[in-house]
Amino acid sequence: MDYQAVLAEVWDAVRPVLGQGRVATYIPALAAVDPRRFGMALATVEGDVYGIGDWREPFSIQSISKVFTLALALSRDGDALWRRVGKEPSGNPFNSLVQLEYEQGIPRNPFINAGALVITDRLQRLTGDSRGTLRDFLRAESGNPLVDFDPVIAASEAEHGHRNRALAHFMASYGNMESAVPEVLEHYFWQCSLAMSCADLAKACGFLARHGQRADGSRLLTRSQAKQVNAVMLTCGTYDAAGEFAYRVGLPGKSGVGGGIIAVIPNRCGLCVWSPGLDARGNSVAGVEALDRFTTLTGLSIF
Amino acid sequence: MDYQAVLAEVWDAVRPVLGQGRVATYIPALAAVDPRRFGMALATVEGDVYGIGDWREPFSIQSISKVFTLALALSRDGDALWRRVGKEPSGNPFNSLVQLEYEQGIPRNPFINAGALVITDRLQRLTGDSRGTLRDFLRAESGNPLVDFDPVIAASEAEHGHRNRALAHFMASYGNMESAVPEVLEHYFWQCSLAMSCADLAKACGFLARHGQRADGSRLLTRSQAKQVNAVMLTCGTYDAAGEFAYRVGLPGKSGVGGGIIAVIPNRCGLCVWSPGLDARGNSVAGVEALDRFTTLTGLSIF
Amino acid sequence: MDYQAVLAEVWDAVRPVLGQGRVATYIPALAAVDPRRFGMALATVEGDVYGIGDWREPFSIQSISKVFTLALALSRDGDALWRRVGKEPSGNPFNSLVQLEYEQGIPRNPFINAGALVITDRLQRLTGDSRGTLRDFLRAESGNPLVDFDPVIAASEAEHGHRNRALAHFMASYGNMESAVPEVLEHYFWQCSLAMSCADLAKACGFLARHGQRADGSRLLTRSQAKQVNAVMLTCGTYDAAGEFAYRVGLPGKSGVGGGIIAVIPNRCGLCVWSPGLDARGNSVAGVEALDRFTTLTGLSIF
Amino acid sequence: MDYQAVLAEVWDAVRPVLGQGRVATYIPALAAVDPRRFGMALATVEGDVYGIGDWREPFSIQSISKVFTLALALSRDGDALWRRVGKEPSGNPFNSLVQLEYEQGIPRNPFINAGALVITDRLQRLTGDSRGTLRDFLRAESGNPLVDFDPVIAASEAEHGHRNRALAHFMASYGNMESAVPEVLEHYFWQCSLAMSCADLAKACGFLARHGQRADGSRLLTRSQAKQVNAVMLTCGTYDAAGEFAYRVGLPGKSGVGGGIIAVIPNRCGLCVWSPGLDARGNSVAGVEALDRFTTLTGLSIF
Repeated sequence: MDYQAVLAEVWDAVRPVLGQGRVATYIPALAAVDPRRFGMALATVEGDVYGIGDWREPFSIQSISKVFTLALALSRDGDALWRRVGKEPSGNPFNSLVQLEYEQGIPRNPFINAGALVITDRLQRLTGDSRGTLRDFLRAESGNPLVDFDPVIAASEAEHGHRNRALAHFMASYGNMESAVPEVLEHYFWQCSLAMSCADLAKACGFLARHGQRADGSRLLTRSQAKQVNAVMLTCGTYDAAGEFAYRVGLPGKSGVGGGIIAVIPNRCGLCVWSPGLDARGNSVAGVEALDRFTTLTGLSIF
Repeated sequence: MDYQAVLAEVWDAVRPVLGQGRVATYIPALAAVDPRRFGMALATVEGDVYGIGDWREPFSIQSISKVFTLALALSRDGDALWRRVGKEPSGNPFNSLVQLEYEQGIPRNPFINAGALVITDRLQRLTGDSRGTLRDFLRAESGNPLVDFDPVIAASEAEHGHRNRALAHFMASYGNMESAVPEVLEHYFWQCSLAMSCADLAKACGFLARHGQRADGSRLLTRSQAKQVNAVMLTCGTYDAAGEFAYRVGLPGKSGVGGGIIAVIPNRCGLCVWSPGLDARGNSVAGVEALDRFTTLTGLSIF
Repeated sequence: MDYQAVLAEVWDAVRPVLGQGRVATYIPALAAVDPRRFGMALATVEGDVYGIGDWREPFSIQSISKVFTLALALSRDGDALWRRVGKEPSGNPFNSLVQLEYEQGIPRNPFINAGALVITDRLQRLTGDSRGTLRDFLRAESGNPLVDFDPVIAASEAEHGHRNRALAHFMASYGNMESAVPEVLEHYFWQCSLAMSCADLAKACGFLARHGQRADGSRLLTRSQAKQVNAVMLTCGTYDAAGEFAYRVGLPGKSGVGGGIIAVIPNRCGLCVWSPGLDARGNSVAGVEALDRFTTLTGLSIF
Repeated sequence: MDYQAVLAEVWDAVRPVLGQGRVATYIPALAAVDPRRFGMALATVEGDVYGIGDWREPFSIQSISKVFTLALALSRDGDALWRRVGKEPSGNPFNSLVQLEYEQGIPRNPFINAGALVITDRLQRLTGDSRGTLRDFLRAESGNPLVDFDPVIAASEAEHGHRNRALAHFMASYGNMESAVPEVLEHYFWQCSLAMSCADLAKACGFLARHGQRADGSRLLTRSQAKQVNAVMLTCGTYDAAGEFAYRVGLPGKSGVGGGIIAVIPNRCGLCVWSPGLDARGNSVAGVEALDRFTTLTGLSIF
């Protein structure tokens, strides 16, 4: 398949929606980005990379980091991890506390904020350095040694992090927090601040297209675990719009409020699209549109 | 692939869990079934059918009917259908009213009872005979002209149907019911009462493996609509266990409290498994186990 | 105290708010009333009656009927009644189903619709004729043999009663309904349709000011039960505005969507005010204002 | 009325329930108290004080402090206070976050923890020293200059305060916190740690029986404000058991998890009872029973 031609066609198709949606404003550092930016990259399991637009421009990966911390914790902890976090879609916004109370401090899944805090807590215990482990992994998988945290973003997250502090203390009140709350929060904020390009991320999620195999041929996850992470992405990866995303795009995917979305076509490729204008549920408007067009044009979908 | 050998191996593997779980008791007519019954069938897109155990024994399809009424309504109504029902996982039990109140009478998805009542209401308006349209479709797709309603089950559903009556009147109070409530309920109860075997159902869901094409080669759904129905099955098909099912099985599937589960491997085959013992969330214990084994043994999964 | 003079002063004070709020429109028959109507009456425990404005004009008592059915059921059933309905404020609108689901079909209190349906069901069982028992009681207490149902209102309630039907079937699904749902609903709709004037109602609630003693000197409730009914009125009598009402008025009270409110000053008098314009929570704007003024002017309050 | 004789009779009556219930264990310092302790005191508006049992023994006042911080903030802030906190019963446990999310960070009332944190925040802004202002007020009203904080309790509250931290950060995320979260929490924890006897507290709530007048004859609250505080106590003073408390006791009251309950008979006296065994909703078993007996024996009730 001529991926470069397909991406070019996608780019044409999404132009009308560029600039639609609203840039995330919950932290000032994110609010400054131009909503009309757009980039998309595709990295095949064979190692070829294609891209359009701002595909080499680093952006704040935000919640996309949650896929990688999940994979890293799962690879070390195995099924024991699921005692502390569920794997069901939440049906609620990403930062809701309601369900957490009804379910006694066990977050619904690893991709809502509460769940990602539990994963960070676990990874911190398992490695002693959650954020460092994540950064090193992403540098290795993307082949880009310059992948790094953005300290301005991290500081802004911390300054405006009352909701995440509330979530962490709330889970601690149920006994579902092993490390000290401030330590977990700091690692979490730094992880969200990582700056990566579409090219970096398309390559970095390649292990999920390769059924658990890393870029260097070693294995991070078993075949079964890779399937599980993809399944959780499909059912929980786009907040309370997971059903809509599965319906339109039909691929496991994970979005972030920085405007990025990664998606996986098992056995074939990793994808990443970036455009900062978000819809009401926190997903990139042009990003979802681009993935919708891509799957329609190529007929590639898991369904 | 030697499907018959795989099915035999699955059968061996599930023997230890046969009889586990509890038979549905919410209507007396269902409670009488032996929980140790087990059958499984596979129907390829090429038309071959394989089966084990009680695969030719008819059972009450219950909520599995919701997949077919959705497809029938969608084929006639197109995207207009989604104005009256959502497509997000509910995160709540199948008969909850809570979310319906928060969301002003619009059910979360077509596979919770409230959503299926809306679909039945719509199909009734579109065809004048919702249950008859469904029966005729299932006879045609399964190639079994004996597929029929079970009047004892239907009467039992009606007698113990207070919760479904509550759901229908509740939606009517929000203006989301076109026909009279008793008429919609009657069609709904009859639809749930249909008796079919694993062989019948594996064949009947073939159109979802064939991207929308019916058994006779005509088209029920567009390729895009077929993908959409599969996506809704994956994210919403097993009540509040959809995440767990996607995680373990990794296929679009739909369960019923009669103990049946259908699943689809796009481009390849339809599957149906039946065993009446249910877990706490209303899904067949041995049925989920069998599909888990099947996908593990064959490596077939959408992820 | 010169009650007539106080009432006159109250009337002057509320003139600016007459016509504010919105007349109930959930049934057409109520929507036709002029929102500027206003009446108020006071009946002392000694038997004197005072009134202003439209105090002799009958209006639809609606939910005010719930106080009397509660008292009638309690007088026959005693504490056994509380096994089927709670006595806590709901914190939710009067017709919510959410709490009912979390609390397994036991309504929070007798003054939300679900609770009143349970009381009606119980009174029907205890007397064989719930609505007739209510009407006869109200005729006796008000001394007005013309108190009667309004069949147009009752029919309109039935026609637009989907929400109440949903509540009743929902409780039936939890086993909290003894009689057939349609029978309970019919009695409930008729009870709400009773037409009475401020004078009638101020007298009819006199037994609550007289610690349980009826107009003819006989006893309906024990002193303790009368205190209990007053307590439930204070904490639950004005839907999700009970706190605000206690704060402003400081009397046990019960409102109806017909625009009426009754209030009790133990040992002293019964009060009734009527004005059809409702606030967002279903309480008469001018009615609450009048009672606020009355308690401020007289210094009469239970606090 | 011979209050001393009544109290003696109450004491006899409650002996069978002494030791019932469970001592609060959420902080270790509270768990060490003997559950069979019991004391009760009554202070008339004329200045007489009566007591039985351990009525001079100091205990941890915990949430009873919320009545006084509310009164102190209201006296300085007036109605402006109600922009930041509601006055409706919550229908939920005292430390729930659910409602807070649905209502956008505005707590239901000043007597659930979230509401008390807002009041503390406000009082801190108004006085510069919330806890000091509270302590000085309680010393003056009780006439006991030894009333003081218990630093062991305060430290224990802080150590086990994850839930309260979660509440405060959650409200801060909605912009409903003026001071820094740690500062507000510290004052809150110290306020809860105050140790007072039944005698102290019965006297200290005298201003609510005297319609706002302090022990020294000066005025803390207007007559109307005193009525309002009493009303909020009645509808919200005993968590999700406010309806039950009003039903059984029929007085404005406020409980604490230390086992104390204060109650007010307007125009007549303040009451305080203490016994550490708590029921499932956090109210003293023997305390509620004693107040129930007291109002039954004396016929004193606001209803």
